[in-house]
Amino acid sequence: MLAEIITIGDELLIGQVIDTNSAYIGKQLNKIGVSVYQITSIQDDKTHILQAFKDAESRVDVIIITGGLGPTKDDITKKTIAEYFNDTLIRDDSVEKNIQDLWHKYVRQTLLQVNLDQALVPSKATVLMNTLGTAPGMWMERNNKVFVSLPGVPFEMEGLIDREVLPRVRDKFDCPYILHRTLLIFGLGESTLAARIEDWEDALPPEIKLAYLPSLGNMRLRLSSKGFDKSKVISEVQKQIDTLIPLIKEEFVGFEEDDASIEAIIGKQLTKIGKTVATAESCTGGKIAERFTANSGASAYFKGSVVSYATESKINILGVSKEAIDTDSVVSAKVAESMAKQVLELFDTDFAIATTGNAGPTKGDSDVEVGTVFIAIATKTGVYSEKFMLGDLRLKVINKGANKAFEMLLKEIFKN
Amino acid sequence: MLAEIITIGDELLIGQVIDTNSAYIGKQLNKIGVSVYQITSIQDDKTHILQAFKDAESRVDVIIITGGLGPTKDDITKKTIAEYFNDTLIRDDSVEKNIQDLWHKYVRQTLLQVNLDQALVPSKATVLMNTLGTAPGMWMERNNKVFVSLPGVPFEMEGLIDREVLPRVRDKFDCPYILHRTLLIFGLGESTLAARIEDWEDALPPEIKLAYLPSLGNMRLRLSSKGFDKSKVISEVQKQIDTLIPLIKEEFVGFEEDDASIEAIIGKQLTKIGKTVATAESCTGGKIAERFTANSGASAYFKGSVVSYATESKINILGVSKEAIDTDSVVSAKVAESMAKQVLELFDTDFAIATTGNAGPTKGDSDVEVGTVFIAIATKTGVYSEKFMLGDLRLKVINKGANKAFEMLLKEIFKN
Repeated sequence: MLAEIITIGDELLIGQVIDTNSAYIGKQLNKIGVSVYQITSIQDDKTHILQAFKDAESRVDVIIITGGLGPTKDDITKKTIAEYFNDTLIRDDSVEKNIQDLWHKYVRQTLLQVNLDQALVPSKATVLMNTLGTAPGMWMERNNKVFVSLPGVPFEMEGLIDREVLPRVRDKFDCPYILHRTLLIFGLGESTLAARIEDWEDALPPEIKLAYLPSLGNMRLRLSSKGFDKSKVISEVQKQIDTLIPLIKEEFVGFEEDDASIEAIIGKQLTKIGKTVATAESCTGGKIAERFTANSGASAYFKGSVVSYATESKINILGVSKEAIDTDSVVSAKVAESMAKQVLELFDTDFAIATTGNAGPTKGDSDVEVGTVFIAIATKTGVYSEKFMLGDLRLKVINKGANKAFEMLLKEIFKN
Repeated sequence: MLAEIITIGDELLIGQVIDTNSAYIGKQLNKIGVSVYQITSIQDDKTHILQAFKDAESRVDVIIITGGLGPTKDDITKKTIAEYFNDTLIRDDSVEKNIQDLWHKYVRQTLLQVNLDQALVPSKATVLMNTLGTAPGMWMERNNKVFVSLPGVPFEMEGLIDREVLPRVRDKFDCPYILHRTLLIFGLGESTLAARIEDWEDALPPEIKLAYLPSLGNMRLRLSSKGFDKSKVISEVQKQIDTLIPLIKEEFVGFEEDDASIEAIIGKQLTKIGKTVATAESCTGGKIAERFTANSGASAYFKGSVVSYATESKINILGVSKEAIDTDSVVSAKVAESMAKQVLELFDTDFAIATTGNAGPTKGDSDVEVGTVFIAIATKTGVYSEKFMLGDLRLKVINKGANKAFEMLLKEIFKN
């Protein structure tokens, strides 16, 4: 059972928009045992779209198409699908009613003919009702191959994938069980890890695939397997994990459930033990707070943050001593530790993270080298900090700084 | 002059990693007049990679490949390229020296044979030196077609694209001039805008392409054209813009230079007029601060933020009155306006943004419906707020809330 994802839109090819849809679709298909063989992004061009359909049909069983279904003239996917299936467009009453309902509920502007025309669908299509937007999804079959066309707006596409597409794919095809287990590992580089587990890796059975997934400051190792005997797949992978873990005992932190982020793992752990956290952020500028609060249920453990970007706000709001800043510099262990202690008190939390550094590209209120970051962790009983050199690329310093801070906090939580 | 981008890695197809590399490469190629015809993402599988190379070679002039160049066993791109070119791998001394230098400078772990083997390159390849990492870029030519292989780590790939690939592509091919102008438009939906400018759009000359780019709460309209006569391309597009702007006079906000984000436009404007901003964020959780500080030079205008996620922090740190929270609810116009006024004073800025709302999925410290967000803008002379209903998807509420806040602030700045 193979699938291909085709994303349509000039904005993808000129890099104005990042294709996040494919990752979502790939992840969801994978969960029901469908492997994505290829992702193809192409322009809003009829000839090219037709060619891509033909190529995909020769490679895979299910083709998922997103984009090009809007009400405007540059959206040509629907017409092209109809042409590919030698079909004509007809008006679908239930879609038209959905458009009118949505319009009356949410939109202050006049309902136009171009909006109503989104109710036109190929006569051979099964309509997939889009309750979050005006462009319907469409399901078409030919020679046991399935074409699904979905709007490109992420939230609408996601709703249709979950509610309409996955159940139908599962019904139509006999899908194997796919298992991924991802191990989170701290403090080992890719090659050192590879050398450490080389013998184990060489002895892996061929049906179990291994992937190294390094990302700014964190390392993940993913084992994947699939088969029609679910319990066998699970036990075979578990057997390998049981022999792997002793090799990385010191550095193994835990499993990523469903690809959870490190901040989600922290959130789950804090909720479990009933503890709270706050942050005082200078060089990370709110990134740590934003990543905590992106997770639902964050209010159970995240109390808030002071983004003390300007030096005077470290003194006025956090209460860091001016003397410490003058003698040790604003980017120093002393200031980071003071920020963490103060914000812990200010928000009355069990843990606090503080960051101060220079993300570049030029030197700020401190003379330290660009990329220097001090991160401090405070608890009710103490505070400590580490110094990092994170390079001279601004977004790298910010993101790597946030990752390092989460890593330090997670270790601290597990210590307790 | 057409290009194809091939990204290699199972993690892309199972949705564990979002492909941001393609957007970067697409954007940079576009600037020098190279159109990306297709983006293809495939698995770490030799047969599939060879097929993708062959297909791409039949379609385009330049093929840019990223991923699969790491030191571990799951990375097979280099060997596959050598096979595709009937070539063998040889050790490159300058690459080996670069690896040793990087290792001694940044890495605490032992340098292993697998790391040194990253100095193996196809004998026919021109090495593109990667000063940010151990995997070198490779440039290979055959029958006037170019294959470029780059590491998948974004920062390394970006450095190689900018310093090594773009200059070589420009030297080798005669590239046309490509122009994109993107207009930022507030307060008009896609279909209403399309109806408003229909006659203008129908009269566009065929060489000028138009695209509607809606994104959470903002609308962008992009005109694109290309040709070998640069000044003609510029003047033809300008002529169209001059007739377009009167049609959207009220809603047209400005041009996006080089696809700048709205927060970058605000930052530029604040720097120009020498004014500052702070934020008090509840439901947006630091997202606004994080987006401001992602831009270099933010310290000139962004002073900081209080992320008052817990209700008590709105009282203790920001000084919102407990009475206002009790009588009007924590999610209310009064609380939003009070937060904005207080944070303006706390950070002593010219502008302040405040957000309070419920991003869901469940109700928090307030009884308001999930998706309700109040956003306030304060200046030295006053404060006002707006209420928004942003749906029931958490990340949508956060991101749309941030976009709406930036939109309100930009309007306020332009008023002054």
